[in-house]
Amino acid sequence: MHHLGRRSSDAIPEVRIGYIGGGSQGWAHTLINDLAQCTDIAGTVALYDVDYEAARKNAELGTQVTDRADADGDWTFDAVRDLSAALSGADIVICSIQDPPAETFVHDIDLPKQYGIHQPVADTVGPGGILRSMRAIPQYREIAATIREQCPDAWVLNYTNPMTVCTRTLYEEFPEIKAIGLCHEVFQTQELFAELAATHLDGVDAVDPDEVHVTVKGINHFTWVDEARWRGRDLYRFLDAELAARTPLADFDPGSMADASYWTNNYRVAFDLYDRFGCFPAAGDRHLVEFVPWYLELDDPDELHRWGIRLTPSEARLPADGPTPTERYLSGAETFELTESGEEAVDIIRALLGLEPLETHLNYPNRGQVANLPDGAVVETNALLTGDAVTPLTAGSLPRSLRSLVLAHVHNQETLVEAGFDGDLDRAFRVFLSDPLVTLEREAAESLFSELVEREREF
Amino acid sequence: MHHLGRRSSDAIPEVRIGYIGGGSQGWAHTLINDLAQCTDIAGTVALYDVDYEAARKNAELGTQVTDRADADGDWTFDAVRDLSAALSGADIVICSIQDPPAETFVHDIDLPKQYGIHQPVADTVGPGGILRSMRAIPQYREIAATIREQCPDAWVLNYTNPMTVCTRTLYEEFPEIKAIGLCHEVFQTQELFAELAATHLDGVDAVDPDEVHVTVKGINHFTWVDEARWRGRDLYRFLDAELAARTPLADFDPGSMADASYWTNNYRVAFDLYDRFGCFPAAGDRHLVEFVPWYLELDDPDELHRWGIRLTPSEARLPADGPTPTERYLSGAETFELTESGEEAVDIIRALLGLEPLETHLNYPNRGQVANLPDGAVVETNALLTGDAVTPLTAGSLPRSLRSLVLAHVHNQETLVEAGFDGDLDRAFRVFLSDPLVTLEREAAESLFSELVEREREF
Amino acid sequence: MHHLGRRSSDAIPEVRIGYIGGGSQGWAHTLINDLAQCTDIAGTVALYDVDYEAARKNAELGTQVTDRADADGDWTFDAVRDLSAALSGADIVICSIQDPPAETFVHDIDLPKQYGIHQPVADTVGPGGILRSMRAIPQYREIAATIREQCPDAWVLNYTNPMTVCTRTLYEEFPEIKAIGLCHEVFQTQELFAELAATHLDGVDAVDPDEVHVTVKGINHFTWVDEARWRGRDLYRFLDAELAARTPLADFDPGSMADASYWTNNYRVAFDLYDRFGCFPAAGDRHLVEFVPWYLELDDPDELHRWGIRLTPSEARLPADGPTPTERYLSGAETFELTESGEEAVDIIRALLGLEPLETHLNYPNRGQVANLPDGAVVETNALLTGDAVTPLTAGSLPRSLRSLVLAHVHNQETLVEAGFDGDLDRAFRVFLSDPLVTLEREAAESLFSELVEREREF
Amino acid sequence: MHHLGRRSSDAIPEVRIGYIGGGSQGWAHTLINDLAQCTDIAGTVALYDVDYEAARKNAELGTQVTDRADADGDWTFDAVRDLSAALSGADIVICSIQDPPAETFVHDIDLPKQYGIHQPVADTVGPGGILRSMRAIPQYREIAATIREQCPDAWVLNYTNPMTVCTRTLYEEFPEIKAIGLCHEVFQTQELFAELAATHLDGVDAVDPDEVHVTVKGINHFTWVDEARWRGRDLYRFLDAELAARTPLADFDPGSMADASYWTNNYRVAFDLYDRFGCFPAAGDRHLVEFVPWYLELDDPDELHRWGIRLTPSEARLPADGPTPTERYLSGAETFELTESGEEAVDIIRALLGLEPLETHLNYPNRGQVANLPDGAVVETNALLTGDAVTPLTAGSLPRSLRSLVLAHVHNQETLVEAGFDGDLDRAFRVFLSDPLVTLEREAAESLFSELVEREREF
Ligand SMILES: [Mg+2]
Ligand SMILES: [Mg+2]
Ligand SMILES: [Mg+2]
Ligand SMILES: [Mg+2]
Repeated sequence: MHHLGRRSSDAIPEVRIGYIGGGSQGWAHTLINDLAQCTDIAGTVALYDVDYEAARKNAELGTQVTDRADADGDWTFDAVRDLSAALSGADIVICSIQDPPAETFVHDIDLPKQYGIHQPVADTVGPGGILRSMRAIPQYREIAATIREQCPDAWVLNYTNPMTVCTRTLYEEFPEIKAIGLCHEVFQTQELFAELAATHLDGVDAVDPDEVHVTVKGINHFTWVDEARWRGRDLYRFLDAELAARTPLADFDPGSMADASYWTNNYRVAFDLYDRFGCFPAAGDRHLVEFVPWYLELDDPDELHRWGIRLTPSEARLPADGPTPTERYLSGAETFELTESGEEAVDIIRALLGLEPLETHLNYPNRGQVANLPDGAVVETNALLTGDAVTPLTAGSLPRSLRSLVLAHVHNQETLVEAGFDGDLDRAFRVFLSDPLVTLEREAAESLFSELVEREREF
Repeated sequence: MHHLGRRSSDAIPEVRIGYIGGGSQGWAHTLINDLAQCTDIAGTVALYDVDYEAARKNAELGTQVTDRADADGDWTFDAVRDLSAALSGADIVICSIQDPPAETFVHDIDLPKQYGIHQPVADTVGPGGILRSMRAIPQYREIAATIREQCPDAWVLNYTNPMTVCTRTLYEEFPEIKAIGLCHEVFQTQELFAELAATHLDGVDAVDPDEVHVTVKGINHFTWVDEARWRGRDLYRFLDAELAARTPLADFDPGSMADASYWTNNYRVAFDLYDRFGCFPAAGDRHLVEFVPWYLELDDPDELHRWGIRLTPSEARLPADGPTPTERYLSGAETFELTESGEEAVDIIRALLGLEPLETHLNYPNRGQVANLPDGAVVETNALLTGDAVTPLTAGSLPRSLRSLVLAHVHNQETLVEAGFDGDLDRAFRVFLSDPLVTLEREAAESLFSELVEREREF
Repeated sequence: MHHLGRRSSDAIPEVRIGYIGGGSQGWAHTLINDLAQCTDIAGTVALYDVDYEAARKNAELGTQVTDRADADGDWTFDAVRDLSAALSGADIVICSIQDPPAETFVHDIDLPKQYGIHQPVADTVGPGGILRSMRAIPQYREIAATIREQCPDAWVLNYTNPMTVCTRTLYEEFPEIKAIGLCHEVFQTQELFAELAATHLDGVDAVDPDEVHVTVKGINHFTWVDEARWRGRDLYRFLDAELAARTPLADFDPGSMADASYWTNNYRVAFDLYDRFGCFPAAGDRHLVEFVPWYLELDDPDELHRWGIRLTPSEARLPADGPTPTERYLSGAETFELTESGEEAVDIIRALLGLEPLETHLNYPNRGQVANLPDGAVVETNALLTGDAVTPLTAGSLPRSLRSLVLAHVHNQETLVEAGFDGDLDRAFRVFLSDPLVTLEREAAESLFSELVEREREF
Repeated sequence: MHHLGRRSSDAIPEVRIGYIGGGSQGWAHTLINDLAQCTDIAGTVALYDVDYEAARKNAELGTQVTDRADADGDWTFDAVRDLSAALSGADIVICSIQDPPAETFVHDIDLPKQYGIHQPVADTVGPGGILRSMRAIPQYREIAATIREQCPDAWVLNYTNPMTVCTRTLYEEFPEIKAIGLCHEVFQTQELFAELAATHLDGVDAVDPDEVHVTVKGINHFTWVDEARWRGRDLYRFLDAELAARTPLADFDPGSMADASYWTNNYRVAFDLYDRFGCFPAAGDRHLVEFVPWYLELDDPDELHRWGIRLTPSEARLPADGPTPTERYLSGAETFELTESGEEAVDIIRALLGLEPLETHLNYPNRGQVANLPDGAVVETNALLTGDAVTPLTAGSLPRSLRSLVLAHVHNQETLVEAGFDGDLDRAFRVFLSDPLVTLEREAAESLFSELVEREREF
């Protein structure tokens, strides 16, 4: 027996966090917010970013916030000028980086569009995901090599996409690394089941999504749920009634999503896939449509609205003009309010330090958690996090028909990583050709791929 | 050591052949032709057909031909009125049946066409293949059950499509059956390599395709070759030059195939798939295009001509009016000439009787011949045929990316057989939904499937 | 994210526990003790035993204890006369049964001894384990069938040996059963590592074994540990020093264990196996020696003492004469003291009711938790227990050389279950022949097996 | 279809054979004999041996024999002084080498005997087999490296033991090598079945063992047969009657084999194993007893006689004093008679040159031929040999219980090869400890292993 209760530690552990991508305008603020309210650990955050100035301003913001009266945490924020310095002696490494959107996302999305290939997200699979993978592999090799040298025992929390390829690259370069890949998509699915619980369970008005347990298995952005429970009660059985109630699924009007948020999700694609496979996909519809051949053959991009989602144009990826959020906080133009962020990074760090065990879904090399996916491939399932340990929970096998579909992407991702390590563009192109979104004939596919690679080379 | 040479038998073996579908106007004539010239075995052929009259006329023809002076074989042909009588005491069972084309093929092809789904063959996968499978499963269960009862030790040669599903059904119903599934498609690939040999090998003018050895692995009509040799010389290495010479592959004019034979094959799709996967597909292009999502999204059916093939309209499946070939032979309107048919059924029978060993490709439950396809699924590989024994030859593994693609069809076929045994239309519909040719949305797919099943029920 | 913290329930759950083997003189008392102190659940315990009188007296004892002032729990104890009544409507089923020792254990141990086969425990493998399995399979089929009928949704906690075979039988008979097999052996290993922590970690005087986390993988009584941690600190690395310190391992004097407890364990065999395989076995030495061919070839039984263990003679399995413990408690001859039992059954029940999550090791059908053991075989690993859910934790693969050894027993156990369901004594005898303790020649083995089966039949 | 008939070649192929171990006094003579009678190929044999003088004399003998009137073959024999020269430009490489018996076999057998470990052969498993493997791995690495350099396209026929380890080493060092391992043991099994055919089939007096087809699967010297046919008739079914007739199996008198040939084989162990596993082992009893724990626990070595075999003392491995057979042939003291050797090497060469296809059993990396043994391990099964191609025939799976036993040796052999490549004596010692013949306790085992390694080092 092993107790899973919260441990009251004698002393507050001191940790050193190395943050790669620390100049960010979103995730960095959440971390500052959460650490400011975390009192059972303390320490230092070293912010590193290719844009040193942005990291420096976030460090300044972190210091300001921590010094405030309403902040109980005891943290120091430093900006550093190189990767090694950021990772030197780190206990925890956070990776959350993004390529310059103007130079990458725009091409990842806009060039394929000229060939009739529409991608709502373009960060995992499809032409955009493949190009992004090819860019990420050398970056992540360097990160893994630096970790091996500076902090081989650190826990690495990766938030960067393409999640599977980045995490796989870390392990390929440094097999002893202790890395996990984290993504929010499954939380949406917990929310859906929380709603189903409130609707269908007698005498239950509202359910905290964090209390909903879902069994997850698959790969990031294409992972699947075949069990959902709340307080020991089965919620999964309500899906069929819900499917019936939402049918016909694709009944939004073309054009109706024109002003919707790019992140709007109505679970319509998810229910359609549930109907096909008997398993519920745990990712937003905008991700799901990129993994299968059935939704993105669009004559007019607005047709996608029928499923309650819209394409995200490349312009939407560009930062707004004017001062950044950090700059606005620092200048006082905006007030940095401490909130309950809902982000679990600090809880994960606390679990790994042995303070409070946690079960969550994450991306990790397969060692049995999905019994019929290949060993070593990075899969997304639940795991138990305890003191210095991440242990995936078994999720069983994917249903046969679904397995072929997922396996095709696993093989593509594994091949991309191999191609990236070998610098083999031909193999990468073969992956490109077998992506479900690439329905072009060979010559057109070759021309698109070459153009994408060409643009790439410019950076 | 086990000698593989021809054995001169002391006595001519007497065999009893039960032929299901014995009223046919093609295959039956070939068998009559080949037996008439086969002198080292002798015996009886019991012809059974749902159309008894057709079987009876073929028996009459068989008797006439055997009695001719130029026929050396010693065979008796009888038409029988029921399946059990045909199989009673059989040493060899031949299955080569076809549903009434007017009532089936027409719907299999024409209904999907109304939904924009074009199928050149419609006998294996796609809407037509799935419906045909659903019809075949109960028929083949009955055949297997009758074999178990009447001739459990007989060798069963199946020529009927859908090959994989029919053969798999035989084994599912009667696991001890000794059945093999036979198809001609790979012969074309041997012909292609024979041409390559003549073109590329110095001092070689012509090569007998039967002398070309190809290593085959996959499933019927979607099987793959990764080795080709002639007299110990590698022919596979010539593919790249040939690919380059034929590029661009899809350069036939739309419309240019309007008068071509429905069976025309220019290997253009085959080379395109070779280019994608590094493995050469051993089936005609008209079959290949049905297994992948890349060729049949046609606005105008003539676009398919670009690949050097054409759609086979349902009318082409209907028998011509007027007297049948058998009737014309019997009436003397046409002369039945003894030819070298090239068909290998009689050679296979001779091999199984221990007369002369044979290596050929065939369809058989997997027990390692394709190492990374599921055990028990019916796969197509080479096998060695000796006295009362069929032993598949190991073909190794399919390349990873190809494996996912083949596996998806294997899973579909396995699921169809399960659905057929359980009478579960919902599971069959799920297979329908995941077929690469079915790119319809759920509602449309459901409506097409229902219509197809409805028509089915009428028969 | 899914919180693992303790849930304060609004109401105290009412549960019904069906206890098969409820007349026991050990385990039943522990349960009475633990429930008497459990205040966050309440309910009824239905005690069933083939010896009804014993169950009735335990019910009387349970009622007495619960009514005492120092007992806070709210429980009702009833003895019932048949299995169906015990299980009717149960939420929890506990199985802890034992064959009449006089009629079984004696023969299981004494007959093989006449053939030179010594077994310290004889409850899992070896001649005794095999015979016990053959007796258990029909009993457990009946239990599973009754559960299917009376309480299909109940959680079943099995404590009976042979653990693997009993648990496997439950699933074979009723695949939807929710059963887990529980055994204490791994706790000893936690104790060993707790000692190592106290010895080797600076500034640590004593460590609670319950706080030691060990990663478990294998089969019951032959399971293995390859990670041990306490508060995030690696303890496994201390094994090598400990091995060196204890070498030579087999250095106890023959005869020196003559008066030792039968359960004495000095981990000498465990360290010897650790030395061979690099993995530490998590079971007492008396169990371990029965699984491998290296320790029990004894000319004189006292030779076994060299390893710090002794054989348990069959007499030791017989109950003492005179009043039973229950009778002594009821008569007042002995006082039933409430203690901290260390037994985890009540914690498991509380976890399954959703009150407090628990991680423990248990026996469960493999679905990936040990990646290189067969799917569906019952394996022993860690699992997470939450509201109405048991989720095995992935333990990775066994090292290659160890895997063959474990696999041989897995195959034997699977074959025994099949033989038991088919009533096939020949297959059971083949298992007998391939057991590592059966080094007899065929004729002798056959004669021993027949004698054992013969005795069996008498009961 | 691919014809398997004999091909009449236009021209006689010229081949170059490099023979490593060409100074042998047995195998070299057989090759000279067989080539002298082989008229459809011709060429050169380069004999290489660490004992150059012996090779030179064999070359002289080869030339003499070929020049004789009764020899039709056209061959040149040359002795060469180094390995590279022997292999330069070779089409065929033959490896049949032996360590100096006086310096190796003696210790391999005699040292373990002092510890009570008896080995009849000591060339594959057991202490002798393990030591021999450790010696062979560096030798075979060098051979493979020289082949890669001098004749990468040659076919390599290995006859040296330990067969599995030698062949596996060739592939580990040079994965593209075209090597097969050849052993005679299975021929004995064909002889047994030929006798059974003559005994049990009506009207059959004698059967040519070469006409008996057996399906082989396992590893060298521990391979298994589950099908036997002659002219399409099942022979396997006669085993049960034969087993009954031979029971009790171990009924020879101790001492009765004192003067028997060391190679005497009465199939008694084979039938005992058949009785245990339902599969018939295809190797001589003297090999079989070394793979399992049941036969070699001997107080007195003569006890082994009961099984109809005897131990081969190390002296028996030493060459007789006086002139060697080659010397006797050259001096005319003995006449070299051309015989029908029964050896198949020349038939194999002819098959690989495309002259006449052959089916035989051989050792080859697993790629599906034994479905439930690990991929890449060297296994023994049937294969089809055609022009420049070796294709293993599928043999299906080993029965579960047998598989564990075989797998343990496969894992040991794989680990030995890894240990050999890494120069890791500790891993080799672990293999030693888990060998079934090593029932010593750790300290004794360590001391024996050290002594063996020490002696080794002296050479
Ligand atoms: Mg994400
Ligand atoms: Mg066909
Ligand atoms: Mg136990
Ligand atoms: Mg041999």
